[in-house]
Amino acid sequence: MDGSRGRFLVAAVIGLVVGVVVGVVIGYFSRQPGSAAPWAEELVRDGDASAGRRVQEEILPENIEENLRRLTSVPHIAGREMDLGQAEELRDRWLQYGLDSARLTPYDILLSYPSSEEDRPSRVTLMEADGTVVVQSQVEEAPLDRYQDDPNIVPPFNAYSASGDVEGELVYVNYGRVEDFFHLQRDLNIDPAGKICIARYGSIFRGDKAEKAEQFGCLGLIIYSDPADYSARGYPVYPDGSMLPPSGVQRGSLMIAIGDPLTPFYPANEYAYRLSEEDAKIDAGLPGIPVHPIGFGVGIELLRNLGGNEAPANWRGDLNITYRTGPGFQQPHTGRRVRLQVNVQNEVKRTYNVIGVIEGSVEPDRYVIMGNHRDAWVFGSVDPSSGTAVQEEVARAFGKLKQEGWRPRRSLVFASWGAEEYGLIGSTEWVEEYGKVLGERAVAYLNVDSAAVGNFTFKSSASPAMFQSVFDATKKVPDPGVNPAGSSYSSVYDSWAAKLPKDEGDPNSLPKIGQLGSGSDYTPFFQHLGISSISINFQGDPAVINFYALYHSSYETFDLVKNFIDPEFKVHQAVGRVLAEMALDLADSLVLPIDPTAYSTALQDIAGSVRTEYSTQFDAQGISMEYLDSAVDNFTTAALRLKNRMTDIDRKNPLAVRLVNDQLMQLERGFIDPLGLPGREWYRHVVYAPSAHNSYAGQAFPGLADAMFDIENAANQTQRWEEVKKQLAVITYTVQSASTAIEEGGL
Amino acid sequence: MDGSRGRFLVAAVIGLVVGVVVGVVIGYFSRQPGSAAPWAEELVRDGDASAGRRVQEEILPENIEENLRRLTSVPHIAGREMDLGQAEELRDRWLQYGLDSARLTPYDILLSYPSSEEDRPSRVTLMEADGTVVVQSQVEEAPLDRYQDDPNIVPPFNAYSASGDVEGELVYVNYGRVEDFFHLQRDLNIDPAGKICIARYGSIFRGDKAEKAEQFGCLGLIIYSDPADYSARGYPVYPDGSMLPPSGVQRGSLMIAIGDPLTPFYPANEYAYRLSEEDAKIDAGLPGIPVHPIGFGVGIELLRNLGGNEAPANWRGDLNITYRTGPGFQQPHTGRRVRLQVNVQNEVKRTYNVIGVIEGSVEPDRYVIMGNHRDAWVFGSVDPSSGTAVQEEVARAFGKLKQEGWRPRRSLVFASWGAEEYGLIGSTEWVEEYGKVLGERAVAYLNVDSAAVGNFTFKSSASPAMFQSVFDATKKVPDPGVNPAGSSYSSVYDSWAAKLPKDEGDPNSLPKIGQLGSGSDYTPFFQHLGISSISINFQGDPAVINFYALYHSSYETFDLVKNFIDPEFKVHQAVGRVLAEMALDLADSLVLPIDPTAYSTALQDIAGSVRTEYSTQFDAQGISMEYLDSAVDNFTTAALRLKNRMTDIDRKNPLAVRLVNDQLMQLERGFIDPLGLPGREWYRHVVYAPSAHNSYAGQAFPGLADAMFDIENAANQTQRWEEVKKQLAVITYTVQSASTAIEEGGL
Repeated sequence: MDGSRGRFLVAAVIGLVVGVVVGVVIGYFSRQPGSAAPWAEELVRDGDASAGRRVQEEILPENIEENLRRLTSVPHIAGREMDLGQAEELRDRWLQYGLDSARLTPYDILLSYPSSEEDRPSRVTLMEADGTVVVQSQVEEAPLDRYQDDPNIVPPFNAYSASGDVEGELVYVNYGRVEDFFHLQRDLNIDPAGKICIARYGSIFRGDKAEKAEQFGCLGLIIYSDPADYSARGYPVYPDGSMLPPSGVQRGSLMIAIGDPLTPFYPANEYAYRLSEEDAKIDAGLPGIPVHPIGFGVGIELLRNLGGNEAPANWRGDLNITYRTGPGFQQPHTGRRVRLQVNVQNEVKRTYNVIGVIEGSVEPDRYVIMGNHRDAWVFGSVDPSSGTAVQEEVARAFGKLKQEGWRPRRSLVFASWGAEEYGLIGSTEWVEEYGKVLGERAVAYLNVDSAAVGNFTFKSSASPAMFQSVFDATKKVPDPGVNPAGSSYSSVYDSWAAKLPKDEGDPNSLPKIGQLGSGSDYTPFFQHLGISSISINFQGDPAVINFYALYHSSYETFDLVKNFIDPEFKVHQAVGRVLAEMALDLADSLVLPIDPTAYSTALQDIAGSVRTEYSTQFDAQGISMEYLDSAVDNFTTAALRLKNRMTDIDRKNPLAVRLVNDQLMQLERGFIDPLGLPGREWYRHVVYAPSAHNSYAGQAFPGLADAMFDIENAANQTQRWEEVKKQLAVITYTVQSASTAIEEGGL
Repeated sequence: MDGSRGRFLVAAVIGLVVGVVVGVVIGYFSRQPGSAAPWAEELVRDGDASAGRRVQEEILPENIEENLRRLTSVPHIAGREMDLGQAEELRDRWLQYGLDSARLTPYDILLSYPSSEEDRPSRVTLMEADGTVVVQSQVEEAPLDRYQDDPNIVPPFNAYSASGDVEGELVYVNYGRVEDFFHLQRDLNIDPAGKICIARYGSIFRGDKAEKAEQFGCLGLIIYSDPADYSARGYPVYPDGSMLPPSGVQRGSLMIAIGDPLTPFYPANEYAYRLSEEDAKIDAGLPGIPVHPIGFGVGIELLRNLGGNEAPANWRGDLNITYRTGPGFQQPHTGRRVRLQVNVQNEVKRTYNVIGVIEGSVEPDRYVIMGNHRDAWVFGSVDPSSGTAVQEEVARAFGKLKQEGWRPRRSLVFASWGAEEYGLIGSTEWVEEYGKVLGERAVAYLNVDSAAVGNFTFKSSASPAMFQSVFDATKKVPDPGVNPAGSSYSSVYDSWAAKLPKDEGDPNSLPKIGQLGSGSDYTPFFQHLGISSISINFQGDPAVINFYALYHSSYETFDLVKNFIDPEFKVHQAVGRVLAEMALDLADSLVLPIDPTAYSTALQDIAGSVRTEYSTQFDAQGISMEYLDSAVDNFTTAALRLKNRMTDIDRKNPLAVRLVNDQLMQLERGFIDPLGLPGREWYRHVVYAPSAHNSYAGQAFPGLADAMFDIENAANQTQRWEEVKKQLAVITYTVQSASTAIEEGGL
């Protein structure tokens, strides 16, 4: 071999070696890991903060103001012309904003309106013995602003009241709560039976007042708004301020059940089987007595000369009179009587929901639902249109992001409900129609009804499963900063925690979150299907007024919001931003932002309260809480294990992530008992239900609470204690079952 | 540049180029695609035929024979000592076979046994007017084989019978079906009220006989086994053959409900709330009259001289007598009376399930459940131990595969139920305890009760969702080939399709598959939770005998199976192989082997039958089937779309596959109405339920069928037609809702 050939060979070998090395490097890196599975990255990508920043930027107060102005331009009661008109307009807007789909879902439901016979209005009349009228309620509220001459304003009435014409002595029953009636009967020896009862609005749901009045034998019920609850001293009344003037009246439904009274448990569609109206009234808890609302302008005249004893301190409102219980009137007015004429008629009418969807890119079969109703008693500038105005802007913002190429991991669903005011009917019928799909696929339901009841602080009622998400979201949203105290908070969370702390006096307290009762459209999702839910809004300073004064009156106008609640619509903007951040967090996070240990903490608290409240009675009956405690402990352990799995799972494995997410989604379903609560089977959440005595309020372990209620006065003690034992067993089973359902193995 | 350097350069360049090429290739292939996501391949890997071949090889007849010999060595009635003993042994074996876990789940339930007072046995006595005994039933069956001296054999009785001592005239009521009682009353003018009724076993569930007898006023009910149904002519009786000898008696429960009578809807665990026994009897449909079973050796003496008219042709059995209806006896025996003494007592006893699991590798949160009960009335060589013996071998085979390194994609669950014979109690309590988890995670329930009732043909009852899977599995399993006709079939499927064709006379017919009623442990899974279920076994030639002759007698021994049914245990092996192949298919396929269009075909068939059967009556009442038809059409479209998605999805995307699989799993859940069927709310499947008149049989659209039943004789016609309308609406809604739940969008 000569040198030349040798060198040639060496060169070739060196070249080859270098070439191979270079080639290997090129070849290796030219092949992307996972390139055979192009979806792999996308399937396990976590949401990031950028979409939140974009959506927050996009939510603009001027748009919300414009939305509200448009929505409140006409009265829009359910089942009348504007129901369809506003639904179609909203659908078209959502489509225009870029949602993938938007459609109407109609239901034919039993609604209730003042009788169309104009010569027979509903009225309350105070008369002398000879029939001379002392005072009589007006059919309409006083024309205090430019809106009041609209012929579509429905006169004040209570929906689903029985019609009737009754006359009798008057008895004052305070808020008309069961404890008020007990006090009357047991302590004051006053029997309301056969009398016309007058209750003040507030404290509990008006339908419960009507039910109790009927149960205690009242001939009829008058409900008035006392200034103590609706017109705080020192604050001007509408139109000079936001307080209730004497002629203002709160409308509202009396139905205790929810959903269409004619089609319980099933959707009110074209092929539904409908109960007779008589059967429906019993099933749905519609009153058998006439009930009518009035303002305090007439109320004071009715109460001024009432006889009987002076009312107890906590029965006294803020009218400038001495509150007495009756029955009947004082000298020289002892002959006076009250006449209550109610003409209300029920009609089957069509209402519409609007459902819009932005489909998820990775898990289109998981839904995060944002809902609010659209119907209002009159103009509804707060209830519900402040929420609708916000919801529409949030839909627009997400639509914008989508048009820019973004999609959430899971589907976003926007829902605008019809006929909420009558008893959450649109949402309930929809939940009944789509219950299977929702039970299998819905991650959460986020409710924004009256978005800006006030401008003082953020407020929320929620399932414990939603705590983490609402904390996270409120930390990301700047405080709207209209706090009259002048202090500034960096975030909605900071302001909220300071103004509504869970632990009063603790500067590091978490914010307080209420239990979900009923009163808005989260109820069917949460109480019937076990979908984790939350309701959010801003409220006024509770030191001034509870809720808001002009609620359900015809004075609830755009001017109220613009002039007195949120002139710059920054409160509305903040609510929209919190809603959007929550929805984003729930729809876009790789692992769902649900902390299962928040639920175990809540259960421990509830079990503790049960022990505190009932242990003496339980001990006397030989009833042990041992098994319940053990079930709660098991749930606590399971929740902790699930929480650990949330961090320990292989986040690169989409099925491992889905497994954990499924269990987080199903956590709340675990508390559903398909048999429902005794006597109100539609409510199936064993941990939380509306109180049986106040639908607005949440009641923990409702089956047990109902069984224990007033047990010492029960007719059949043995039977009642058996019911207590049964309910304890049902709760124990349900908690145990829920804990099993979040275990990895499960069986 | 000289030539040498030039060549050197050329060589180096060539070397480099070759090197780079080689290097790129090496480098490229040295990096595995997806190596950054090592799970990717595994997550989307489809099952293949190799595991099926392996598991079929592993299922050996000699092992099944040995299992059966061991299981039948002692009587093993529920709630007695062997309940725990056999459960513990099975658990230990499963663990030893390599299952990941195996454990006992105990429940304390109300069982029923012959009274322990030995001097007061249950008896039937035929007496002369003066009290002289003509014939009296024996307490025990005749000692025809070496097994009969076992002191643990429970004497013949009907569980949950009322105790009592009644005397009266005898009336023959054929099978004791409602149509038999109608015929007696309406056509023959014979009132069974106040009489002792005697029915023959067969045609319907014995509990339904007892219920009807009580409803029609019988003082007590005697049930005997007629040779027409249990001892085919020309075939030898046990121990010389498999037919029922005169002393053989069918034991069995009378409970119409299922599950522990004291704890309906909730598991019978330590903290359960228990009904009083009196309330439970009403809830569970336990008889209020004494009921007792006898053999035809005594039966013939009771019936021989019965008076009254000759029984209709289809009421005549195969005893060598003239069948008459009674009441009372013919000359010269008119003074004869029958006395029925029953001493049965209910006791709360503990029963045990055994639950074993092989965890899935990819989707451990999806379960394919294989179940059978373990308790037997006596030795239970067919019912249930032939199934238990098979199940144990299948568990061993899968355990072996697992020990060799294999794992199924989804989890395999083995379940051995206690106290099935009393009313599917072990399985029902377990379903009640784990209902949430099962509803969320169970793909299918596969039942093998009496695996080898005969050796003639494979047989199955199933949800339409299981059709594809059982067809696929039976095609893969060789026919056991003990067909006496001598023809040979290549597969169980071929034999099955030929012997039990869906379309009689069509050589290309699919095999016939029955509807699921009740009668074994699939009931709680299918009827209560909506888990797609199937029950499989081999049966004898229906031309010879329906079911099997020694059913629930003490002669149901190992010898019966070994000598007359399946000497080589190849039938058992075939059942085990079909079970294993089905389980494998459901647990290991990437896309679930569920054909949704099989369900739409079934619904179309059922709707068609409803039209055929009721259209005249519907038309007369102005009832339209339009909406039901439309719902069925919508379901058909949705099922077809889902089927298309099964092939069109990106099979490389594990979440896209999971989405489709979730909907296939949830298909059956769509037919569950949480409110249950009217009057029997535990049954919640709207498409299939046990017949209200025969728990063994399946009834399609049961709510409608019950409402229409005997409607022309109903007391309140208007109310009944309202119920028909309501049930039509419920079915329409449910089918519509099920179709929505398998749509991609869903909302």
